[in-house]
Amino acid sequence: MSYDEVMRLALERGFYVPSCEIYADAPAGFWDYGPVGTAFKNKFVELWRREVLRRDEMVEIDGSQIMAKDVFVASGHLENFFDPIVTCTKCKTTIRADRLISEKTGKNIPERLSDHDYDSLLKENNVRCPKCGGELGQVSKFNMMFKVGVGAANLDTYLRPETCQSIFVDFPRFFKIMRGKLPFPMAQLGKSFRNEIAPRQSLMRLREFYQAEIEIFFNPDKVNDVEEFEEVRNYPLRLMRGEDTVEAVPCEKAVEQGLVPSRFVAYYLSLIQQFYEKAGIDLNRFRFRRLAEDEKAFYAKVAFDVEVQTSLGWIELVACNDRSDYDLKRHSEVSKSDMTVLDGDVKVLPNVFELSMGVDRSLYCILEHSLVKEEKRDVLKLKPQLAPVQVGVFPLVTKEGLPDKANQIYSTLKKEFQTTYDVSGSIGRRYRRLDEIGTPLGITVDFDTLKDDTVTLRERDSMQQSRIKVSEVLQKVRSYYYQEAQLV
Amino acid sequence: MSYDEVMRLALERGFYVPSCEIYADAPAGFWDYGPVGTAFKNKFVELWRREVLRRDEMVEIDGSQIMAKDVFVASGHLENFFDPIVTCTKCKTTIRADRLISEKTGKNIPERLSDHDYDSLLKENNVRCPKCGGELGQVSKFNMMFKVGVGAANLDTYLRPETCQSIFVDFPRFFKIMRGKLPFPMAQLGKSFRNEIAPRQSLMRLREFYQAEIEIFFNPDKVNDVEEFEEVRNYPLRLMRGEDTVEAVPCEKAVEQGLVPSRFVAYYLSLIQQFYEKAGIDLNRFRFRRLAEDEKAFYAKVAFDVEVQTSLGWIELVACNDRSDYDLKRHSEVSKSDMTVLDGDVKVLPNVFELSMGVDRSLYCILEHSLVKEEKRDVLKLKPQLAPVQVGVFPLVTKEGLPDKANQIYSTLKKEFQTTYDVSGSIGRRYRRLDEIGTPLGITVDFDTLKDDTVTLRERDSMQQSRIKVSEVLQKVRSYYYQEAQLV
Repeated sequence: MSYDEVMRLALERGFYVPSCEIYADAPAGFWDYGPVGTAFKNKFVELWRREVLRRDEMVEIDGSQIMAKDVFVASGHLENFFDPIVTCTKCKTTIRADRLISEKTGKNIPERLSDHDYDSLLKENNVRCPKCGGELGQVSKFNMMFKVGVGAANLDTYLRPETCQSIFVDFPRFFKIMRGKLPFPMAQLGKSFRNEIAPRQSLMRLREFYQAEIEIFFNPDKVNDVEEFEEVRNYPLRLMRGEDTVEAVPCEKAVEQGLVPSRFVAYYLSLIQQFYEKAGIDLNRFRFRRLAEDEKAFYAKVAFDVEVQTSLGWIELVACNDRSDYDLKRHSEVSKSDMTVLDGDVKVLPNVFELSMGVDRSLYCILEHSLVKEEKRDVLKLKPQLAPVQVGVFPLVTKEGLPDKANQIYSTLKKEFQTTYDVSGSIGRRYRRLDEIGTPLGITVDFDTLKDDTVTLRERDSMQQSRIKVSEVLQKVRSYYYQEAQLV
Repeated sequence: MSYDEVMRLALERGFYVPSCEIYADAPAGFWDYGPVGTAFKNKFVELWRREVLRRDEMVEIDGSQIMAKDVFVASGHLENFFDPIVTCTKCKTTIRADRLISEKTGKNIPERLSDHDYDSLLKENNVRCPKCGGELGQVSKFNMMFKVGVGAANLDTYLRPETCQSIFVDFPRFFKIMRGKLPFPMAQLGKSFRNEIAPRQSLMRLREFYQAEIEIFFNPDKVNDVEEFEEVRNYPLRLMRGEDTVEAVPCEKAVEQGLVPSRFVAYYLSLIQQFYEKAGIDLNRFRFRRLAEDEKAFYAKVAFDVEVQTSLGWIELVACNDRSDYDLKRHSEVSKSDMTVLDGDVKVLPNVFELSMGVDRSLYCILEHSLVKEEKRDVLKLKPQLAPVQVGVFPLVTKEGLPDKANQIYSTLKKEFQTTYDVSGSIGRRYRRLDEIGTPLGITVDFDTLKDDTVTLRERDSMQQSRIKVSEVLQKVRSYYYQEAQLV
């Protein structure tokens, strides 16, 4: 399905809407999750906790979003986290210089050239303002962090541009409290903030967004000594080979052939691929792309992007980076605190491997991969464990006691399941509404119910309907969610 | 237990720690939840969702934290959300003027006097700088919102000082999408931000904090027409009477006697009291305090604070306000959008009743009410449904196959429960660690296990130990959490 079709669904059914949209001065790049979207997001996060964090015994923290300036002195964000921008001398529009050049030339322009180099490229390619055709000014650097003044003294602090910085600065304390051993994975779900010059495509490029980041602290001398590797030895990683090919290579073979640098990395890549499979991403449109030397962050030893194919092209959902000892070394230097830990008897400054996931984009991609246009309906084929509403209950008509009966069933189910009760419109229209928000089960009370105490159970994907006893309803829904759904 | 004892527990066990504490320039008033604290907070939120939101069929949204300036023009925050501050002419310390005066006089000083009135009070009472004894300057107003510049044009926006503003501005859209009817409760869990001059007492007064807010949109003509009132008619609300007395008054009687203005309000107050009871707050130290006319916000028709007694005095956890039609009227005026909805055939501008909960403070109070000093141990008697770790598994010693056996049990349990495996220190010390983080169940594998396949099940509160079969362990833990714990 196209981006526009997903957006229409999102807006009509309340998955997400622009923030502060009743106000003319609402800034771009901020979105609100509505009732259905919030439930969907919460379930996605629950799945991540269960299938990645709990499976690998990771600890989760939740740090403040406003952080001290020195954190970003150490991380390098104050010095390096810039977009090159240029302003039209005529209409005063500000635009990213690198994007302008790559749109004009059709070539990928690196993000870290000097202002002077961008100026030259603009001139060479005779780039003018895309809005008014006016002449462009000089390229300058625009720091993408939001600055926040704290207290009466207006102390400089920043909204974190990535959640991982909380993990790095807290690592020594929690490693000690938890009596940690390497490898020690720490996770965090939370908001990050980037002052994008050109936010766009709703959840794709936001200024305020959710990240689910995992930072695994490890001893670089032990990257092939991974107990859990046995579990994934034969699991096929979907690795990009060449321009357009993806090959499914078992973890063990991928390490042997040098496609993945170590068992350690292969194990974590497999965890993330398995997670997306369970979340409903079509693996035929999923790949790991190994970044070339000039694409990687300068401190990264090796980097893979999880990319998923959508109507907008291949979208990066997770950055999987071996960040070397860069983070702890820098924080140790700037804060003058010792960040080494004992691994057995050996003192080491841990290296970090990260799985940095964009939550909002992931939700968008799941919606796009799940939304199916059939002849007579649009249906959102979400995995049962991600369904915002688990079951709908309808009385066929609002008379002759059908609502009472339906209400009894509803009251029983809602104690245990996200349940909706709907009386308005034809039964067909009510099923369509359930289909569009991805509710797997619908239960209809009709005139036969009054005779033989049975109801219709309707299944979303197959649209099959079966008659079951009222007394069996709860058990049926339970077995659907607790057994079948868990095995997906 | 005292504040200091709770703090010691929090820091030693990793419930929460100061944010960015390795840096000297870390701003005050920001805290990070550690592994145990994050799990505890997540469970608290889950309980709120289950016992309040799902019970009352509320919808939950999740809006952006950075919001348009006009939102706060409409809400009145730009005009009114100030602290009166004064700076010492000698040492340049900035302090809240109202606090200084009330500390000196022992009297409660209103928060909304004019600068001039504060100046007079300072002079009359001969107040000087509490740090250096120097002379104080003039009182001025300090807006407590954090301003954030967005985009290349540096557009003025603000970090929201309360989550409810997202709910108000989104109300028309989601009421329509959800085909809502009045009363229509919308909830949100999220961060809010206030630039406090003097943050203090860790989770008690933060600059970045979690709110769990519920805004119920209702028709003010129908406040005694509440279907669900039947459920709570006889439920005793703990209402403050006079200075130091709390009386438990059944909801119906409380309405009849005019202690609570309507069935509508009584019903929601009872929901919140029941929630805190389930969360482990000692109801003997819980009260609703009805605010006097000069304490309420100017737009509030009626206001109750939920207060809980701690070693720091009575702490406000929830503001329960009838906000009249103030919010929708103001947003409607400033945005020029129609916010009326149909209630049956009648067009109404809904009024709002809110249950605005401070999450961080609530967590602190639960810790303080749950932490018990016994002769030989400190034990955190958390309700089972809030336990960060649900069960611990220990091999008595690390030899003769005991770890293997214990590991098998651990692997089975951890698929379904938050489980910890601990081999270090004496068994007594391991039980103490579990006690301090509130884990209800411990399982120990010992030499008898090898003979008769039984283990010791130890219960936190009673410290009773019983022998059960290995094959029964999973079932025992399940029945503890799925049955007994649900009934608490």
